[in-house]
Amino acid sequence: MIIDCHGHYTTAPRELDAFRKQQVDAAASGAHGPARTALRISDDQIRESIETGQLKLQRERGTQLTIFSPRAAGMGHHIGNEAISLEWSQACNELIHRVCSLYPQNFVGVCQLPQSPGVTPANCVAELERCVNEFGFIGCNLNPDPSGGHWNGPPLSDHAWYPLYEKMVELDVPAMIHVSMSCNPHFHTTGAHYINGDTTAFMQFITSDLFKDFPTLKFIIPHGGGAIPYHWGRYRGLAQDMKRPPLSELLKNVYFDTCVYHQAGIDLLTRVIPADNILFASEMIGAVRGIDPETGHHFDDTKRYIDATPNLSAADRQKIFEGNAHRVYGRLSKKLAATPGR
Amino acid sequence: MIIDCHGHYTTAPRELDAFRKQQVDAAASGAHGPARTALRISDDQIRESIETGQLKLQRERGTQLTIFSPRAAGMGHHIGNEAISLEWSQACNELIHRVCSLYPQNFVGVCQLPQSPGVTPANCVAELERCVNEFGFIGCNLNPDPSGGHWNGPPLSDHAWYPLYEKMVELDVPAMIHVSMSCNPHFHTTGAHYINGDTTAFMQFITSDLFKDFPTLKFIIPHGGGAIPYHWGRYRGLAQDMKRPPLSELLKNVYFDTCVYHQAGIDLLTRVIPADNILFASEMIGAVRGIDPETGHHFDDTKRYIDATPNLSAADRQKIFEGNAHRVYGRLSKKLAATPGR
Repeated sequence: MIIDCHGHYTTAPRELDAFRKQQVDAAASGAHGPARTALRISDDQIRESIETGQLKLQRERGTQLTIFSPRAAGMGHHIGNEAISLEWSQACNELIHRVCSLYPQNFVGVCQLPQSPGVTPANCVAELERCVNEFGFIGCNLNPDPSGGHWNGPPLSDHAWYPLYEKMVELDVPAMIHVSMSCNPHFHTTGAHYINGDTTAFMQFITSDLFKDFPTLKFIIPHGGGAIPYHWGRYRGLAQDMKRPPLSELLKNVYFDTCVYHQAGIDLLTRVIPADNILFASEMIGAVRGIDPETGHHFDDTKRYIDATPNLSAADRQKIFEGNAHRVYGRLSKKLAATPGR
Repeated sequence: MIIDCHGHYTTAPRELDAFRKQQVDAAASGAHGPARTALRISDDQIRESIETGQLKLQRERGTQLTIFSPRAAGMGHHIGNEAISLEWSQACNELIHRVCSLYPQNFVGVCQLPQSPGVTPANCVAELERCVNEFGFIGCNLNPDPSGGHWNGPPLSDHAWYPLYEKMVELDVPAMIHVSMSCNPHFHTTGAHYINGDTTAFMQFITSDLFKDFPTLKFIIPHGGGAIPYHWGRYRGLAQDMKRPPLSELLKNVYFDTCVYHQAGIDLLTRVIPADNILFASEMIGAVRGIDPETGHHFDDTKRYIDATPNLSAADRQKIFEGNAHRVYGRLSKKLAATPGR
């Protein structure tokens, strides 16, 4: 089985956008936003959006299961206030739950957290619990910068995050570190903010003792780890100069996905990072949707690069495509075993 | 001849730091800071700092010329106000001029710009002119975020930068895009802020028409281009999705240095980026000072990686080590021809 650990519901029916627009407009005018009960999307609409989108591409590309979460750019934690973020997150998570319930063979859920700038991450615990315990989700997306590009909240090593980490450990769910839309004109959302977020998070891990306090906490850094593997020597050297533990220590807690959209990038990733720390992912349908004129295939058809790279053994590929996902997402195996027809 | 296009005076005599401390303390208390005429450093002190530092390593590593500028992290444009930034920049640039005058065979100058948050970059023009016309400098370091990690000024495509770009074009000098120290706790200076700055700048170029307005403007993106080459497929795909010109168009104006501190990284850089767009650099003595236990050599001894990569022909290496520097730094050839003893 090939598991894609990084897919967002980017094809949700337009009613979701309309609901969000109402919410954002209400937030701007100080009015009371709509409750998510006002959002009406039918199962047929969901089926159409998935069957013509992610499911179709799964079949074409030969992958079987996507670990699926709300659209990352759409999280927009910086918009409105905590109540708006919560209502929006719950709406998005419930929609993911419906997708996963309609297609239990193909999608397993990961939740958006109702983060809000200046609000303690402790307030995300309840929604995380709901999604894991009631919906059977197996992880969360954690935004290291809910300000949307101003980076004015606490770094990931700050104790403000600890209640959330404690709950993650208790529930045995990892977080993918994933920023959302940038509202800073310096940072293009998918071209700069996403990649910078990845790089920034890993460097925060290098300089902190977070994993001493949470030895079983697990993070996935998406987009191939941002700039980290390309500059692996720099990071090994910085850690050494600062008398921090070698990066191999961090690899007990930190994993990289394969959302790197060309062969040379995947070749570097698989050369530098141990196969035990790489999780297959494509972020399909996501940031880059076109066909690479140099290959004739979609840029984000990352399975092709994994298949083609000379750096991996068959055993390595099995880990990247499937095995590691079971190790990192501690609830995945039971979840799949309990899925009818699997 | 092997030209290292990225070296900072990180070994300056301690009097420079003491002067800066006086300046920063004065800025904090609102007092009048010291004038740079108060800074006393002898030629012998400079000689010692260089001969036991950069010059020693040049000789050991077999490089001949360093394009040399003030310490990047030390620029600290966010500290104090414009007057303080100007006095400090002038002091640093004058010190670089003294190094280059003492060792004209080994160092050519690049200046720090007296940027200050909220102040128009046009105000940097005079110091750029002074450094180029009076000191014979051949380029400048341009900080895309003089706030030191808050990213609240204009992006590089903003017309606020245009007077500076006009002067660069007129003088035929390129800029290295280089942030300074981070005062944002999210961003480790050399591990996150530097690399993010590089990635951010390139993405700003992708999304703007800057080089339509300045077809001969030239930028060097240091640290191997941040995350860009590793995600070259992503950037090609994003440009294509946005109906922007192909990245090959940008490569008429944008160059990457080789400050990537391991073999796999240099192999990727030289596989993905045309040899015409790569400039040899080590940032020696800089961000990473230790010896790589995996190789027994300094992490930043980047010449070894260039020598060892299978991706380059002898002609490619000549371009990277020397030829491209002459193309990008338009004043370099004349400068060297006029150097006594060369």
